[in-house]
Amino acid sequence: MIKVAILGYGNIGKAAEEAIKAAPDMTLAGVYHHNDCLDCIDADVVLVCTPTREVQKFATVLAARGICTVDSFDIHGQIWNLREALDAVCVPNKAVSIISAGWDPGSDSMIRAILQALAPKGLTYTNFGPGRSMGHTVAAKAIPGVKNALSMTIPLGTGIHRRMVYIELEEGADFKTVQAALLADDYFAHDETHVIPVESIDALNNVAHGVNLVRNGVSGETHNQRFEFNMTINNPALTGQVLVSCARAAVRLKEHGDFGAKTMIELAPIDLLPGTKESLVKALV
Amino acid sequence: MIKVAILGYGNIGKAAEEAIKAAPDMTLAGVYHHNDCLDCIDADVVLVCTPTREVQKFATVLAARGICTVDSFDIHGQIWNLREALDAVCVPNKAVSIISAGWDPGSDSMIRAILQALAPKGLTYTNFGPGRSMGHTVAAKAIPGVKNALSMTIPLGTGIHRRMVYIELEEGADFKTVQAALLADDYFAHDETHVIPVESIDALNNVAHGVNLVRNGVSGETHNQRFEFNMTINNPALTGQVLVSCARAAVRLKEHGDFGAKTMIELAPIDLLPGTKESLVKALV
Repeated sequence: MIKVAILGYGNIGKAAEEAIKAAPDMTLAGVYHHNDCLDCIDADVVLVCTPTREVQKFATVLAARGICTVDSFDIHGQIWNLREALDAVCVPNKAVSIISAGWDPGSDSMIRAILQALAPKGLTYTNFGPGRSMGHTVAAKAIPGVKNALSMTIPLGTGIHRRMVYIELEEGADFKTVQAALLADDYFAHDETHVIPVESIDALNNVAHGVNLVRNGVSGETHNQRFEFNMTINNPALTGQVLVSCARAAVRLKEHGDFGAKTMIELAPIDLLPGTKESLVKALV
Repeated sequence: MIKVAILGYGNIGKAAEEAIKAAPDMTLAGVYHHNDCLDCIDADVVLVCTPTREVQKFATVLAARGICTVDSFDIHGQIWNLREALDAVCVPNKAVSIISAGWDPGSDSMIRAILQALAPKGLTYTNFGPGRSMGHTVAAKAIPGVKNALSMTIPLGTGIHRRMVYIELEEGADFKTVQAALLADDYFAHDETHVIPVESIDALNNVAHGVNLVRNGVSGETHNQRFEFNMTINNPALTGQVLVSCARAAVRLKEHGDFGAKTMIELAPIDLLPGTKESLVKALV
């Protein structure tokens, strides 16, 4: 049995706990909070479910102890830097860190890589939603006069998105002023954005999300090869499950002496799954 | 540059040649026919584009010489046996054989494995077509009185398929007799099958195909996670491209000393693509 611990117990940590308990080859080695003693953790793999900006700090400490980690670090522009930094810690300490293991970045990245291999020339568009954008929601909450907010991402195709921003105003705040400040914010200034005042954000709460990923490309000299991947999912449940499936891959890579930091496009799909090679090849190939 | 040779020059071999010429990191190391001298082949990888039942014979001879091979062996029930047989030849001779590298088995297998990792409990249905089934077309051509045939696979959902069988009769053949023989054939007896007489099969010729692959599953304890993968493609062009992308993966695995026979679910998507790890992670993750 693989001993898997959870560090950070928000939406993702809770969903990961459910996925560990449902896994036939894992036991839960404990749930730890940000400020717990990391030296106390005894596990084969730690799922780092902290806010994204704290991932590197915690993963570094754990990898230095030779403990594998998995995180869902999601700042696309900084993934390569995180990979390089953790790789330098993992290799000498014989650990494996699987980074950016969610659905985007994560499983969508694997799909994009496969589609590019099937049709090397062409365009891929990733259309997100409908679903809540965490980054845009946080940006909306930071606008003066906003008590609570929800920014929904609506796909318009070809990677273009509309932002539907629901706001609960603070007592006495002026809607027009808040709306103008929000529309001028860099998070919203470049997209079609609608601001809607509501009585209660809590009444709109929904963790549903999804993606529509399309590629039209060229295989060899043959054009018009068309591919499409769609999903509609509970966001934290999927992210928690991806972390857990990647924990299994981390252990397999470590067993094979393949130490270092990896993104999901560097993993073989078979290593995400429980069972023998023979049973998986017979069931899935 | 990776030197890639082609063995067998039918539809797939010709499409593979186009994909090799379009690849930035490969050169064509020759096109060989079934009865050519295999000892004359000088290549890093040979794409075995022969009929499926001849794949093992040729791949065995090449792997024994330490040459990597890629094939699109497509008899689902015999894939594990082929993998075991080629693995035993590859490992001592430091070769890599990537088997069943087409779209199904092949890239669809990777998608099925990923979807199972995202939602471990649930059902996946693979719906093929509309497109020509080679196996059913060959079976229809073998019926006495049939001059030429085309068996189209029509998806009805939940993995159930209709067979639309177009037949060109031999001079003097009786349609009702041919139809009865075809419907009794084991290839057709278990599916909804329609037999349609036509003047010319050649006039219907079309290598278009496709798939609709759906999974509804459970991530952790959360039900109703929905995934769908669709493609509409030129069949030989896609198969040729997959062989070529897998040739690149074979060379990468050999460089890392990871010898043996592998199916596509055992490959990391990044190894199918040209370019550095850094450029690919930055572009795709």
